Amino acid sequence: MRHFELLTLGDELLLGLVGNSHVTFIGSQLARRGVMLQRNITLGDDAGAIARQFAESWRAADVVITTGGLGPTCDDRTREAVARELGQKLVHDENVERALRERFERFGMCMTANNLKQAQRPERAEILHNPNGTAPGLWVEQDGKVLCMLPGPPNELRPMFTEQVMPRLARLGFIAGEEAYVQMRTIGVGESLLETKLQPVFDSHGASDPARLSVAYCAHPGAVDCRISSPGGLLSRTQLENIACECTAQLGENLLCVGHDELPRVVARLLVANKRLLAIAEDATGGMLANCFNDIPELNHFFAGAAVCHTHESKMQLIDVPEEVLLQHDGASDEGAIAMATGAAERMGADYALAITGFEYNSRAGNEHGGPVHIGMYSPHGAWAKTVTYPGPPLALRQRALTAALDWLRRELLKEKNTQS
Amino acid sequence: MRHFELLTLGDELLLGLVGNSHVTFIGSQLARRGVMLQRNITLGDDAGAIARQFAESWRAADVVITTGGLGPTCDDRTREAVARELGQKLVHDENVERALRERFERFGMCMTANNLKQAQRPERAEILHNPNGTAPGLWVEQDGKVLCMLPGPPNELRPMFTEQVMPRLARLGFIAGEEAYVQMRTIGVGESLLETKLQPVFDSHGASDPARLSVAYCAHPGAVDCRISSPGGLLSRTQLENIACECTAQLGENLLCVGHDELPRVVARLLVANKRLLAIAEDATGGMLANCFNDIPELNHFFAGAAVCHTHESKMQLIDVPEEVLLQHDGASDEGAIAMATGAAERMGADYALAITGFEYNSRAGNEHGGPVHIGMYSPHGAWAKTVTYPGPPLALRQRALTAALDWLRRELLKEKNTQS
Repeated sequence: MRHFELLTLGDELLLGLVGNSHVTFIGSQLARRGVMLQRNITLGDDAGAIARQFAESWRAADVVITTGGLGPTCDDRTREAVARELGQKLVHDENVERALRERFERFGMCMTANNLKQAQRPERAEILHNPNGTAPGLWVEQDGKVLCMLPGPPNELRPMFTEQVMPRLARLGFIAGEEAYVQMRTIGVGESLLETKLQPVFDSHGASDPARLSVAYCAHPGAVDCRISSPGGLLSRTQLENIACECTAQLGENLLCVGHDELPRVVARLLVANKRLLAIAEDATGGMLANCFNDIPELNHFFAGAAVCHTHESKMQLIDVPEEVLLQHDGASDEGAIAMATGAAERMGADYALAITGFEYNSRAGNEHGGPVHIGMYSPHGAWAKTVTYPGPPLALRQRALTAALDWLRRELLKEKNTQS
Repeated sequence: MRHFELLTLGDELLLGLVGNSHVTFIGSQLARRGVMLQRNITLGDDAGAIARQFAESWRAADVVITTGGLGPTCDDRTREAVARELGQKLVHDENVERALRERFERFGMCMTANNLKQAQRPERAEILHNPNGTAPGLWVEQDGKVLCMLPGPPNELRPMFTEQVMPRLARLGFIAGEEAYVQMRTIGVGESLLETKLQPVFDSHGASDPARLSVAYCAHPGAVDCRISSPGGLLSRTQLENIACECTAQLGENLLCVGHDELPRVVARLLVANKRLLAIAEDATGGMLANCFNDIPELNHFFAGAAVCHTHESKMQLIDVPEEVLLQHDGASDEGAIAMATGAAERMGADYALAITGFEYNSRAGNEHGGPVHIGMYSPHGAWAKTVTYPGPPLALRQRALTAALDWLRRELLKEKNTQS
């Protein structure tokens, strides 16, 4: 197994001004190709510390990936420090300068002298093109190792990593050329029950030899992923997919997907397939449920909208919750949840509606307690509610309520789809 | 300056299954007390790698903080590895066992044998009490250095860090006993204009000697923070606060706050002070604007609710946007923004309303472009709209639009407050 290290550079990360999203992104991309990052080290902008750390990581690792420290300002010393460690000169790259000048011109901006620093590269480095920003990435192969330097902004780093770095790493055989495992995502079965259900399938395919078939479970709040792989390469990807296919028969509606889809996206796809429109009403989650669908293309084809209601008046005026329902338990009840879902669906002309209500006033005061939260569902086939409690802090409770609500809708849409077809 | 290192432990961090929120939290807490983390190292659950890294960090640093690896499952080997490096025996702590048994009993859960591992501590370690979970923290002073081991779940780590670790570090003189700087947060002035405005004030207080008065600027999207400190201790905190006070006169409404408040909290406080109720309507930001206020206590005292509208029908039915407005530009216009704000305020009986509309259909297809986004404002004094464009990816544009909308409201509320008083 190759040794991968990630150096994330920038005072802003250590000062807590910006979260380190790079380790999360790069770590998960590599894991999908069968590699686990060995170490992630975050350092500030001190050139000496960067040089020392790079020297140590370069000795220990087969692949060193750096992020940040490639910009034009004077605290970006990464390039110099690294070139010195590699024993390479920094040279000026004409093509990068030309691309920089064109970019500045296109945006009508003035290019300052220090921008030219970004055209410097170690003499034997290759340039990774950056269509989304000024600092190009750098790729160095030396002594059978790889150094890959990426710009800090996530919208520049991410496409560069998936489109340029991953294929290069695969070509060198440092990561798998395709997904290293087949993943089944499940909701509504605990980890041990899941294992009991699936183990007979895996046993029949030789899971007693983990080089042949390796099985790993990963639990999330309210959901469990199961990943199968063949570390020794004895099973092909098609064979792994066939095993996953056998598992799906055991899982029924508890299977969310085979692959990496998230719950909101699965729900969105079912809504589109069933030609159904969704409405939402929420108080406890304050817009989080509406926000789940925010990055799904063409969401206006399946999502009418949401009413986020924090006062009785807004509940009555926006989605016609009857006053008498609000006078009982502040509306935070199963009846309140049904009234919110029904009102939202009818007002927005939607086929389905989800509502989440409850626990708001206490939880915002910071108490640790477990709800209850009431989830309401309106559908063409009826309207119902269920009550959900979880121990833990308010944010965890909100997340659990979101998952429970979306999963309930997913199961209703599946039923409907199976009836139609 | 003491050397602080943070070791964040757990395969899940390197596999990208969970973000590393610990470096962000601990880094910012330490920065407020005048200390910058020197290094953050994330490692998996491999006991050998943990032992090697701990040995290296313990040699280099004055303070080593670890997170995670204290739980009951078999991959949590931190305790053993670290005790060995310190040359201390692991001993069983009766008090921790008693607290564990009480906690399990209180939640009606069964305590398994491996939970008892959490009662083990290096012989000369002190226990940091954990009211929010099972794994206690550990505190070791040895060779003039400090080792502090914290549990992984953020809701357990955070209060333990601020309530127990920070006071201990301050008592040892490893961090400042109070905030190390005075921060002014500004919105609406660029960094260089801000510097031009404030430099004369700083110069008059001896900023030519940075040991006496040190000034640092930190730019965020649409906002700039300015922090002043006295690294040599020549100015007291009261003197720094007086200098900040002089600056506020230069800043006028561009001052968001002196301290660490976020924009939504400042807006919330003004709404409460002015006894005003807010309503929101949004499409482009899909619930993000509503969600800004989600963690503010008693939000129902100042926030009526939000209409998140993705279809014409929901805009007409929820907040009475006239059909003819929607037929022009899909409603994504200044007129559309005003109609959304006005409708939301009137429906929900609110005094003020903000609306954000635009760019939704293109941005969701993943195009990089800069808007436009239309922001509508309804107030007791009139209704207006402004158009906002920014280059960059959709998420950045949404963030900018949120900041612009909230800041506009903040300025209106300030005007109103000043008129009243």
